[in-house]
Order: sequence, then structure tokens, then C-alpha cells
Amino acid sequence: MPISHEQAADQAWQWLEAASRFSETQDPERDGVTRLCATQEHRAMLDALSEWMRGLGMTVRQDNGANLIGRHASWNAAARTLLLGSHQDTVPNGGKYDGIMGVILPLALIHYLRESRIELPFHIDVVAFSDEEGTRFSSTLLGSKVLAGTFDNTMLDAVDDEGTSLRQALIEFGCRPEAITGDAYPAEEVIAFIETHIEQGPQLELENLPVGVVSAITGIERHRLTVHGLAGHAGTVPMHLRQDALVGAARVIQLVDTLCQQTEDLVGVVGKIENAPNGVNVIPQTTTLSIELRSPDDAIRRQARQRLFEQIEATLAASGLSFDHSLTYEQPAVPCSAWLIQVLEGAVQDTGIEPRILFSGAGHDGLAMQALCDIGMLFLRCKGGVSHHPGEAIAPGDLTRALSVLENVCHRLAAHG
Amino acid sequence: MPISHEQAADQAWQWLEAASRFSETQDPERDGVTRLCATQEHRAMLDALSEWMRGLGMTVRQDNGANLIGRHASWNAAARTLLLGSHQDTVPNGGKYDGIMGVILPLALIHYLRESRIELPFHIDVVAFSDEEGTRFSSTLLGSKVLAGTFDNTMLDAVDDEGTSLRQALIEFGCRPEAITGDAYPAEEVIAFIETHIEQGPQLELENLPVGVVSAITGIERHRLTVHGLAGHAGTVPMHLRQDALVGAARVIQLVDTLCQQTEDLVGVVGKIENAPNGVNVIPQTTTLSIELRSPDDAIRRQARQRLFEQIEATLAASGLSFDHSLTYEQPAVPCSAWLIQVLEGAVQDTGIEPRILFSGAGHDGLAMQALCDIGMLFLRCKGGVSHHPGEAIAPGDLTRALSVLENVCHRLAAHG
Repeated sequence: MPISHEQAADQAWQWLEAASRFSETQDPERDGVTRLCATQEHRAMLDALSEWMRGLGMTVRQDNGANLIGRHASWNAAARTLLLGSHQDTVPNGGKYDGIMGVILPLALIHYLRESRIELPFHIDVVAFSDEEGTRFSSTLLGSKVLAGTFDNTMLDAVDDEGTSLRQALIEFGCRPEAITGDAYPAEEVIAFIETHIEQGPQLELENLPVGVVSAITGIERHRLTVHGLAGHAGTVPMHLRQDALVGAARVIQLVDTLCQQTEDLVGVVGKIENAPNGVNVIPQTTTLSIELRSPDDAIRRQARQRLFEQIEATLAASGLSFDHSLTYEQPAVPCSAWLIQVLEGAVQDTGIEPRILFSGAGHDGLAMQALCDIGMLFLRCKGGVSHHPGEAIAPGDLTRALSVLENVCHRLAAHG
Repeated sequence: MPISHEQAADQAWQWLEAASRFSETQDPERDGVTRLCATQEHRAMLDALSEWMRGLGMTVRQDNGANLIGRHASWNAAARTLLLGSHQDTVPNGGKYDGIMGVILPLALIHYLRESRIELPFHIDVVAFSDEEGTRFSSTLLGSKVLAGTFDNTMLDAVDDEGTSLRQALIEFGCRPEAITGDAYPAEEVIAFIETHIEQGPQLELENLPVGVVSAITGIERHRLTVHGLAGHAGTVPMHLRQDALVGAARVIQLVDTLCQQTEDLVGVVGKIENAPNGVNVIPQTTTLSIELRSPDDAIRRQARQRLFEQIEATLAASGLSFDHSLTYEQPAVPCSAWLIQVLEGAVQDTGIEPRILFSGAGHDGLAMQALCDIGMLFLRCKGGVSHHPGEAIAPGDLTRALSVLENVCHRLAAHG
């Protein structure tokens, strides 16, 4: 019996509420959701997902990287596969939607397609990635790397706080870690990977839009910069003779902020500061800062970096201060596939929503999946841009709209051939 | 047999070298001097000073606050007394001159006066204050408070890191703490207290002057200021929507620096900063700063404070940030007595040195002694303005010049009546 998008979205809402109980915490409203890789909460979550998937007539399997994959088969047994999904894990005391919403919404889509007897010329595999946040083993993107065939086996030796290795945890979870290599999808069988995820930022909410299409997953670079001054008695050294490292660091903080405020498609932050000797009556000797720059466009980010360090050099030299810095991390941007952006944009329009393209400032499983296939992402607005926090919230009506968009994506992909 | 100023200063130099060995550390050049209140090093220092004083014909006594006082008596038994001296204690790993130089230089003066058979119409008491730095018991200005009669007996319960109380330590040092009250000088018997001390700043060195006359001991105020922002994902919150507490704090640091750079007789520092959550990829939520302002003129300092907080309020409000702050410490400035500044200025001129008046940005025993009598201070230049550090250094020739100034002070005081 055909059901409405509302009915399917309502089912998704109930599943999301149920999922929030598979948590180390007791009260998801107050303490959020804590569900880490290869734990009993992970097991309970996969058991529930398996039951829901089987109820939708899907075939279910767990791979050796602790991913759960449910297949909604096409009438055409030789068809290629559209991958939908996201990660089931959370950060400690995270929210009810980051990750798991991108698993459950596709299940609601399958529910809708099945009840509405809509047949598609491709398989849909819904994936609950085991571990994207990497909280327990620092094994960020574990699940998607397994599917993409880029998992590095040395990561199996990583240990959690209790000294349990990822290898051991996976074995206890029913996996055979030595067989992970065989779990990669054959690239030729995959059409694309499309992930739905909360935005984790406030832009859609501010523009009163329920969904947005992701252009790229941001590139990131991080620096560690130390300003070298000269400690001294804060009462006896005249102002014009001081070499105050913290005053220099304050200028650097402002340079980072101003540059990012003035450059489109660039964000940046000085998130961390350490000052020495850090006494109320001592002129600071050494101040160390982290500098992070992010952009969906690597060229913008690298130009900004060059300009920033030219400015820092000139500014600190003028203050009689020296500095050193090192690039501690660099991850290039990963663009979503142009044709999938078009498909998603069209599907949003088909749903009667103004299409909005935005970039993702956070990392996602697409970073790993792009090694396997074309990737696309649909963002759902979230309240206040809050994520990784018990206060994470979405509107039920947005689930309905996003479900419609996903259905329209399927129709467009079917027409696409 | 008359001796030259050089000879007397050379004696002072030898005594200073000997004094640097009364230290917890083995190598004063490398590890500096560590001599804390009521320790065996303090005892050894007082024993040596007593011996040197007796060799100069002085009468020596230790009071109940562990001060050592040597008297060079006048021919006039009914005369009043000029107090000269400084503290014998050091900070941990301090230098060879901060404090003790102001005890030993007056001994060299007595040596010179005695050998030159110069008689004065007043007694000179040379005091080695037991404890000015307050390192062991946080009992800053202990010795001078005892002499000024302002010592608070509850301080006797203060304990060191090993749990020994100041009371117990004083008893073991041969003092009767209950008799401290009786150790105050009768005010009517005191002409003045004059301290010689290294500058602890670079001004005299920069102006190529061996000595300077202190106008006042700085007033100090300290604030604790917290900027309140909003934590957020450093990748997903657009720049124009951020409330970054550290960016606000950086502005405050610059306001403090700029105001102090532009205001005469005002110095200030943000010495301490604490940032939360202080993660490389999180927009700072809360940043707490210490703000210290110092001036020899309380009116300048209080006007500056008002202006500073007006600027901070306007600047942070414009950035959408709030803040709170509290005044955590305030110590008014203590001016040196005008007539003693004149006497010292004249004595410097008599010595053929251009008189230079400067304020002390650091605290000194005069802060306590002003409750007893008029105070004056003579600064000696020190290398690079360095103090509280093994690298503390003075030039032997400056000891000679300072000794001449002290002699001329005596002549002027004798003429003064």
C-alpha cells in the first residue's frame, strides 16, 4: 500500500529516537549519545538496523571492518549499485543525528520505494559505517576506507584507552581483520556514493532552507607557530624596550581572523594557545599558537597561507620578535563529482526547494569513498549549527523534504542510465 | 690609614663574591643564588656579615624577625640614626646582587668612613633584612615590616612547602617571635631609610649612567578578565557568525599594550592567558587574561584603567562578545620623600654624575619602611636590565661611583642637620 513521504519520514524519526538509546549514556537529551566502534552499543545498533533492514526485505551483511550493509536489490540482477549511508558512531556525548541520520533516512527511502512499488534499474546498498569519528582507536574513516580498499592494516595495532587493539576488538565483534582487503567494493559495480548528513553549521538555517548540496569537502591545513620574545620583569622594563611574545601572538591571531573574514571560501581559527612563563607579572617569553585554515579550494587555501605568513613575518619583525612555525597537517579538499552535484541540485529543485550549493567545513566518509567512486552529499539544516553536542537537533519536516530529494535523486539516476 | 673609594668598592666586590657562595646552589654563575629566609644559608650569610661588621668596629645584633643590624655609632651618643640596607634573601636561582648589594655597599661605606676617619653627627645602622622576596613563606617584606612595626603576627602561621611554620623557623633561627613587636624602631630616632639596589631594568644602561635616583615605588593593580564567546566547529561556522573568545582576547592584549605604549609613566602587561577548550579545531569559547598596570602616579594608573575598560567594552561589544572582570590586587604607589630625592640628586651631582630620576617598577623594602620614616632609593645600573636570574651583573666601577654618592649623601645629611 503506497505511503506518503511524511509517513516514511515519521518512521525514520521513530528509528532515530530508538537509535539514540543505543548509547553509553542513559539520557540522550542531557548527556547526548556515545556510541563507539566495536562496542556493545555498536552491536545493539547493528542488530536493530539489521532487523529494520530485513523488515524492508533487504539482504543484510556485516563486513570485516564492522560495517553493516543492507541491499535493496534491483529487478536487474546485473545492475550496478548506488551506495547510500553514513556512519553509525558518534563522538563522546554527541548528538542524535550526526552520522546515524544518514543511515536511517535511506532506510526510510527504501521503505517508501517498497511500499510505493517503485522499481529502480540499480541496486541500493545502505551502509552503516563502523567508525568515522575515530574516537576509540583514532581510526578516523575506518569503515569507508575498508569499502574503498584503502584501509591500512597497520591501523589494526592501534589500541584504545584500555589497551585493547582494534584487531582484537574487531575479532570480538565477529570480524576477520585479515580478510578486510577483500571487503572493498569492485569500483566498476558502483554508480556513486551519496551521503546525507546534518550541516553542522548555521547557513541553511539562516537562509531558511531545509537542505543544501555539498560542493566539496574542505581541505585543511594546520600550523604550529611559536613567537619568541624576551621574558622580563613586568614592572621594570620600559614599554618601548619590551619584546612581548604574547603581544606578537595577539597580532597573529588578528591577522588570521582578518584574512579569513576578507577571503571568500576560507575559514580559519587560532584554537589553541600556550604562553610561557604565563605569570601575571612577567613579560611573556614564548607563545605558541595553532593556526588552522580550511577551504574547499586548495588554491585559495595555499594563496591565503602564503599571504598570511608574509603578513606575520612583516608584523612580528616590526615588533622585534622572531618566530618559527611548522605545517603539522595538510589534507587537500575533495570535490564532490560535478555530475552528482547537478543530479542533487536538480532533485532539490524537483522537490520545490531552492537549490543551494555549500561546502562542507567538516570531514566526512566521502574523503575515503572518493578513492572508490564519485561522491555526492546532501546537507540537512540543523538547529543553530550545533553538532557533536547533546543539543544537536533537526526538524521532522526536513526529514520529509530530504526524503523527497533522495527519491528524486533515484529517478534522475534511473533516467541518467 | 685613608683608603680610596676604589679600595673600599673592591672590598665590597670581594664580599659580594663571598656572599654568592651562601646559597643552596653550588655554582652561582650557572645556577644563581638561592638564599631563603631562616635557612642555613641565611645563617651562614648573617655569620659572615656579623664578622665583617665587627671587623669594621660595628656593634651587631639580630632581631626577632631574623634581621641583622650593625651599628656604626656617631661621636654623638644621643644622635638619630640613618638606616641603610636591603634584603639578604633571593628568589630561587636569583642573582648575586639583588638585595645583598644594598647591604654590602653600606658596609664598604663604613669601611671607607672609618679608614678615612670621617666622623658623622648621626648613627648609621646597616640592616640585612631577613626576607623581602617572600619565597619560602610568602612573607614578602617580612624584615622591613618588623622594623616598621607593621608586621602582622598571623603571618607567623604561614608554612613553607615542608609544612614548617614561619614561627617555628624563626625560633630555630634563634628568634623569639612573640617579641617581634618590640623590634620596631622608635620613629623619632630615625632620620631616614636609604636603600641601594640594582635597577632591574635597562634604562640606566641605555643612558650610560651608573646610578639613578628613585622618585617612587610603583603602584600596581591586577585584573582577571574573561572574554565569553561561543564554541563551535572550526570548519562549519562561517567567519561572520563566529564569536571567537580568543580573537576578542587578542584585541584586549593589543589595547593594553597600545595604551601603555602611549601613556607616560605607565607600564602594563597581559602576562597570563588561559583559553578553553583550547583545541586546534574548535572556536574558542572562553579566554581568561591577567591584566597588570603599574605607575608611580596612582592618578595616571586609575585614569588609564578607566580608559582601558571603556575601550575593552566598546571593542568586545562590537565583536559580539561579552566579558567580565575583577580587580584582584591593588597596591598604591609609594613616593620617595621629596627632600631625600633632592639629597640623593645633589649627592649624584657632587660625584660628577648627571642626575637621573626614575621610578621603580618593582617593589622594595621601602614599601614597608615608609610607615616608619622618610625613604629614599639609589639605583645602580645592571647589565641588560636582568634580575632574578643567574645572569644578573653589575660593573665594579659602578660600585665605586655608588659608594661616592653614598658618602656625599652622608655629607649632605650632616650639613642638613
